[in-house]
Amino acid sequence: MSGDDLAGTPLAVALVHHPVLDRTGEVVTTAFTSLDLHDIARICRTYDVGPYYLVTPVAAQRQMIERIREHWVAGEGYKGQHPRVQAMERVHTAPSLDAAVSDFAGRWGRPCLRIVTSAQEDRDACSFAALGARMARETERCWMLILGTGWGLAPEVMQASDLRLEPIRGRAGFNHLPVRAALAIMLDRLLSFPI
Amino acid sequence: MSGDDLAGTPLAVALVHHPVLDRTGEVVTTAFTSLDLHDIARICRTYDVGPYYLVTPVAAQRQMIERIREHWVAGEGYKGQHPRVQAMERVHTAPSLDAAVSDFAGRWGRPCLRIVTSAQEDRDACSFAALGARMARETERCWMLILGTGWGLAPEVMQASDLRLEPIRGRAGFNHLPVRAALAIMLDRLLSFPI
Repeated sequence: MSGDDLAGTPLAVALVHHPVLDRTGEVVTTAFTSLDLHDIARICRTYDVGPYYLVTPVAAQRQMIERIREHWVAGEGYKGQHPRVQAMERVHTAPSLDAAVSDFAGRWGRPCLRIVTSAQEDRDACSFAALGARMARETERCWMLILGTGWGLAPEVMQASDLRLEPIRGRAGFNHLPVRAALAIMLDRLLSFPI
Repeated sequence: MSGDDLAGTPLAVALVHHPVLDRTGEVVTTAFTSLDLHDIARICRTYDVGPYYLVTPVAAQRQMIERIREHWVAGEGYKGQHPRVQAMERVHTAPSLDAAVSDFAGRWGRPCLRIVTSAQEDRDACSFAALGARMARETERCWMLILGTGWGLAPEVMQASDLRLEPIRGRAGFNHLPVRAALAIMLDRLLSFPI
């Protein structure tokens, strides 16, 4: 991997496809979507964070994602000079969240703190303001913002985290934002602090 | 139309499919996408704004959107009690931006101000803070946030507006957010002010 994909901010994003919950609370593996691939890459590029890790244990899914990335970064898509090229450089895959964290910590040479996200209330959750202030202050670390597909991250991922971020609270008791929209709002809130 | 789709906040969202620009600067009509339909409906519902008007002069497109809406709000989708039902109630169509503004102003019985958005810098643009403060203060109005598909709103829409909102500035000179992500960030910024 080249160093070109290392963003200016020591913050990475992981979109987890396993282990996540389905609507009934079962632990499942979801399929990656082209939509999450492109939208989240563009959002990460806008806020200069990355890499953006798509985490899935399914090798065929990782290969498909890598092929799409290569199309844009080094193939036919690159020739078209589309702005999507710059966004797709941020895309990486990992077979597990541990592998993503290990890769990212190695790039920065710093310990990586795991920040999990959820649409559910949690009395131990960290506020956006508090997390933004920590990220600005604790410059000896790097940080990974972890989002779940499906109906959210499985309990084992929540428990193995360093920090739980407060949910984005809607105005009318509706907490079903698309994961792409939730990430855009999270980065906008967090990166209003200088890091 | 029922009154159930009138949000608690006097702010509507219009996604314009014509007149918008393509990559070369030509004025075109884009096709609606299922993605923008669902994602933006969920974002609007989260922040309790609406209606969400999909603006297109193509009657067949409006009919397709209405059929998708009916599937969720009154058809098979409704029976499943999916949270998407509440989001889809916010969806409406309009053949033109003028028709959307007229419908919305009629619902509130107030004059509607047109707020246009763009990824481009504009020295006359209104800041998020200034617009949020105006919306909180000027309770005799209602407001429509207007977004373009394709490569943005055509000049005639920009010129016929009351306010131009400042762009969302990325950290690294990249201004290609998906329209869905841009809207999520805009509502989150604007509605941190009490309206």
